[in-house]
Amino acid sequence: MSNPSLLILPGDGIGPEVMAEVRRIIDWFGDKRGLAFDVSEDLVGGAAYDAHGAPLSDETMARAQDADAVLLGAVGGPKYDTLDFSVKPERGLLRLRKEMDLFANLRPAQCFDALADFSSLKKDVVAGLDIMIVRELTSGVYFGEPRGIIEEGNERVGINTQRYTESEIERVARSAFELAMKRGKKLCSMEKANVMESGVLWREVVTRVGQDYPEVELSHMYADAGAMQLTRWPKQFDVIVTDNLFGDLLSDLAAMLTGSLGMLPSASLGAPMANGRPKALYEPVHGSAPDIAGQGKANPIACILSFAMALRYSFDQGGEAARLEKAVETVLAQGHRTADLLGEEGRAPISTSQMGDAVLEAL
Amino acid sequence: MSNPSLLILPGDGIGPEVMAEVRRIIDWFGDKRGLAFDVSEDLVGGAAYDAHGAPLSDETMARAQDADAVLLGAVGGPKYDTLDFSVKPERGLLRLRKEMDLFANLRPAQCFDALADFSSLKKDVVAGLDIMIVRELTSGVYFGEPRGIIEEGNERVGINTQRYTESEIERVARSAFELAMKRGKKLCSMEKANVMESGVLWREVVTRVGQDYPEVELSHMYADAGAMQLTRWPKQFDVIVTDNLFGDLLSDLAAMLTGSLGMLPSASLGAPMANGRPKALYEPVHGSAPDIAGQGKANPIACILSFAMALRYSFDQGGEAARLEKAVETVLAQGHRTADLLGEEGRAPISTSQMGDAVLEAL
Ligand SMILES: CC(C)[C@H](C(=O)O)[C@@H](O)C(=O)O
Ligand SMILES: CC(C)[C@H](C(=O)O)[C@@H](O)C(=O)O
Repeated sequence: MSNPSLLILPGDGIGPEVMAEVRRIIDWFGDKRGLAFDVSEDLVGGAAYDAHGAPLSDETMARAQDADAVLLGAVGGPKYDTLDFSVKPERGLLRLRKEMDLFANLRPAQCFDALADFSSLKKDVVAGLDIMIVRELTSGVYFGEPRGIIEEGNERVGINTQRYTESEIERVARSAFELAMKRGKKLCSMEKANVMESGVLWREVVTRVGQDYPEVELSHMYADAGAMQLTRWPKQFDVIVTDNLFGDLLSDLAAMLTGSLGMLPSASLGAPMANGRPKALYEPVHGSAPDIAGQGKANPIACILSFAMALRYSFDQGGEAARLEKAVETVLAQGHRTADLLGEEGRAPISTSQMGDAVLEAL
Repeated sequence: MSNPSLLILPGDGIGPEVMAEVRRIIDWFGDKRGLAFDVSEDLVGGAAYDAHGAPLSDETMARAQDADAVLLGAVGGPKYDTLDFSVKPERGLLRLRKEMDLFANLRPAQCFDALADFSSLKKDVVAGLDIMIVRELTSGVYFGEPRGIIEEGNERVGINTQRYTESEIERVARSAFELAMKRGKKLCSMEKANVMESGVLWREVVTRVGQDYPEVELSHMYADAGAMQLTRWPKQFDVIVTDNLFGDLLSDLAAMLTGSLGMLPSASLGAPMANGRPKALYEPVHGSAPDIAGQGKANPIACILSFAMALRYSFDQGGEAARLEKAVETVLAQGHRTADLLGEEGRAPISTSQMGDAVLEAL
């Protein structure tokens, strides 16, 4: 039997640097734990645009469809800011999400003990925080039609469409309830049902799906109140489910609360493939950080933990995932810090590859 | 010459209680400062629904159009949660905003020195914070057509439309630049131009309007990054301009950062009327807080400061507005605290009307 396949798309900015460390970790699991992968690499985002004039080539798209899991670094950068909307680096990522139909984006917002002081929030508000945001990722205003900039009278109008079908809501709700069952059995759904009909339908469908999960305590919150409550007392939440656009803002907010932005991974999951594995793409929550790219300053941990999520959700290796997560915690407890994990203390940060070394050491 | 007219719409929940204190303040300005208003009261939200079967009657709408300024308490409550979308309390407020064409919603997020400890954020992150969010209030996904829940194939689809014309963007951008000129001359515009064409147009128009304000330092940020940056280091901002939906979330987030939610007012301004005053509605940022309604626990300060904004923006009484704001600061410095302004300290809170007394005393 052949090894499971991993397609690696390092992308732009700090993507290639952090991914280089992940490859060392992947190799370690092959050498030491008998978990070998067929790893291949390809281009996405600005890097793909530079090579092919498009932020994701059809060939790369096809390889992603065939892979057992895709690992992505980050896309975008100021160099591409003036590109036409249709070929911006982000479109490559959005095409992957859409065509692989990765409807459930899992974004854990976890506060690492060793980093609790680093949050802009008070320590008692965030210490021990561990919530999971499930963001719908293939629909809503990101993909709804009609869209575009049209002429109307003597001026232009910018249009996007928020659009959710019952089945789109149902499947992401089901993913969220399943996750809640494995966690604290509390799910909060967020929308703007007081203002948007799409939110009314969202609330109704989530409530209906909830009948299949009587053990899960379901609540609903308007997304603006959600932003407030996440800021005020985030520990009130266990799992949160929300749409594509609200999820974009709320998951970034939640990530920032933890003070551990350079630490947070994400998984984007679709329907099961023929081999039973879900279509899946894993990526750090942080962006391409062009300001520090190429300087060996980036923190590779979010990307390393994204691989841990791959072990758990794609390859059913929860034990090995926990091993990797444990190693990261050890490294932090030992005081290893890349630049983003240091305040004004004036301590010298370690480099991207030194952080990789430390994780390998801890493994 | 007749006195300027003030239409008061206390609304639901704690609205009537906090508004009762504002009326005492208004009377004080009439008696002591020669600033008399013709005050009348009417219903909005659930209260209007209970009386008329609609959350805003046509008569009330007409009176609001004629008033020199409208002061609103809050709308909504669990009693109305099961009402049909079209008659929910919120629709009354949205009708006022839309028909009065109140396109610029000014939401100051200010951290009161005496309350800096009360934020969930670290004191140095929020102490002295003073930013102004300008939210577009009459367009975008709140009002765009088509909207609704339709049948498609064998399921339902929830649809809303994000829609912005150049002129809608231009007028709110202009308001934001004007405010920035009177403040720190820094404006940050937030959208999702990397994902939404309406955001592309937004960015382009804001940039163009900026050419008329060369003294203002203009920047652009994606709204998700905006949520992060507001959480990380809010003092980097002076004025923020954003659309209706992003503004809803981001202004609530900003309000919560300050730890002073019960303290924050807002102004919603439209075009100048024949008498030169802008169409205007003033309301606290907090909601109707049904859990504490009718118990004399609510903090009336946000509503009192909304009247201060009315003095400044509708009646050109910046000096009197500052007098009222100063009185509020004095009251806080003296240690007067309603329940929402007390932590676990176990001190006894004062009541809504005692807070009103204290402000009158300080005046
Ligand atoms: C890069 C961008 C298209 C993307 C999004 O808006 O979804 C990012 O912000 C994210 O959250 O993954
Ligand atoms: C009550 C509701 C309709 C309203 C909104 O969504 O605009 C509120 O959240 C606000 O921000 O004023």
